[in-house]
Amino acid sequence: MPRYKVTIAYDGTDFAGFQRQPNQRTVESVLTKVVNKIAKNDEQRIEVYGSGRTDSGVHAYGQVVHFDLPFDIPSKGLLHGLNSMFPLDIVATNVTKVDDDFHSRFNTHGKQYRYKISRNQFVDPFKRRYTYNFKYHLDLELIKIAMQDLIGKHDFTSFAATGNSTKDFVREIYNVELIEYPQLNEIHFVFNGSGFLYNQVRIMTAVLLEIGTKKRPVHDILRLFEVKDRLQAPLTAPAHGLYLEKVFYEK
Amino acid sequence: MPRYKVTIAYDGTDFAGFQRQPNQRTVESVLTKVVNKIAKNDEQRIEVYGSGRTDSGVHAYGQVVHFDLPFDIPSKGLLHGLNSMFPLDIVATNVTKVDDDFHSRFNTHGKQYRYKISRNQFVDPFKRRYTYNFKYHLDLELIKIAMQDLIGKHDFTSFAATGNSTKDFVREIYNVELIEYPQLNEIHFVFNGSGFLYNQVRIMTAVLLEIGTKKRPVHDILRLFEVKDRLQAPLTAPAHGLYLEKVFYEK
Repeated sequence: MPRYKVTIAYDGTDFAGFQRQPNQRTVESVLTKVVNKIAKNDEQRIEVYGSGRTDSGVHAYGQVVHFDLPFDIPSKGLLHGLNSMFPLDIVATNVTKVDDDFHSRFNTHGKQYRYKISRNQFVDPFKRRYTYNFKYHLDLELIKIAMQDLIGKHDFTSFAATGNSTKDFVREIYNVELIEYPQLNEIHFVFNGSGFLYNQVRIMTAVLLEIGTKKRPVHDILRLFEVKDRLQAPLTAPAHGLYLEKVFYEK
Repeated sequence: MPRYKVTIAYDGTDFAGFQRQPNQRTVESVLTKVVNKIAKNDEQRIEVYGSGRTDSGVHAYGQVVHFDLPFDIPSKGLLHGLNSMFPLDIVATNVTKVDDDFHSRFNTHGKQYRYKISRNQFVDPFKRRYTYNFKYHLDLELIKIAMQDLIGKHDFTSFAATGNSTKDFVREIYNVELIEYPQLNEIHFVFNGSGFLYNQVRIMTAVLLEIGTKKRPVHDILRLFEVKDRLQAPLTAPAHGLYLEKVFYEK
């Protein structure tokens, strides 16, 4: 049974998130259907494993999945086959044959998320599904200073939504960056880390925006690490600004 | 009755075009509803006049409309009022008070349309509603030469869809441009002219793409002007690549 690693991009708008759920259109359910059709497997016995879930409305540029096929097929042929059968809101961008012990979730060495913020006075109709429009004044220098506090190994209890069985809230953030796109009138926050808790990126984004509008002191993140209390950081930035950009694996 | 000129942008995806139609969500019907609500006019007696129609699925960056209000209101206040009541796929970008004799349709001195073509091997999920993906090889130099044939005053019978009561098919094209956006992997065709017939921009785009793929000789447009026969140019590029970009009025 050859194993394939597939990188996919998707517009999260019309999906109820990544994970399979009864009677919902999810990324996993669409992938599973297509892969089993390619394998001519009517009972959908082939499982598709993702690097992790994304929430309803969250987008992906570089989600990674793997699955086994009952026969060998060239990567390029599989890439074309998948894209000819996917709906238009999913696209496969890369297909590689991998060893049997490759696992899209267990082998990850980190992930990169991007949060896109539009800076228009009114919501741009062409960006309403793809960026979060934040019209209020932001002190970008304060945000850049605050971002530095996120870097390193920390207990992110204050930044994790409940509704998840996680017990260990320690994660490592390798890098956080604010990138300005003046021509697009956008700023992006790029988070690079070992892994992220449920809603962590959206909660960190909301806190950074509160710092940028001076609703919180610039080093409040250090206090939030201490108090370990989600009620101290109750906001969550909307899903439609968030992109799973890259999943890292050891070469 | 003060008259207002309003510039609007809209994502055409979820509209059945501009013009009001029974039981359809159109741009005109949404505008009319909002303007009458602002005027506290339950009977929807205020008419909204557009510079022209756009088809189902066609977008606009700079459509222009006008209407009269029963009371005076500062332009900036009206801009905010409209945007607070518009659905997210329409936005007003400019409001100006104009003279009583201004008419959004009769006073136009020209229009600019933009047709966006993506050059990806597979459809980009984030662009599927906003560009036409054309993956085949294109000779851009041939297209640029062919575009020159469009410029000037011509009989565009071969480039007009039926289903319209027009009798005069002569229009003037002031300028046509091919702009490359290598970072976006897109090319845009920009058409600037006195006015355009029904589907004219989409038919011209289809012909230019046929020239770029060498399905037609480079100067076939000159022949199409001569034959005055739509059957000789039967293709229409899809609506979702097209944008009404600007409407020109005399200063």
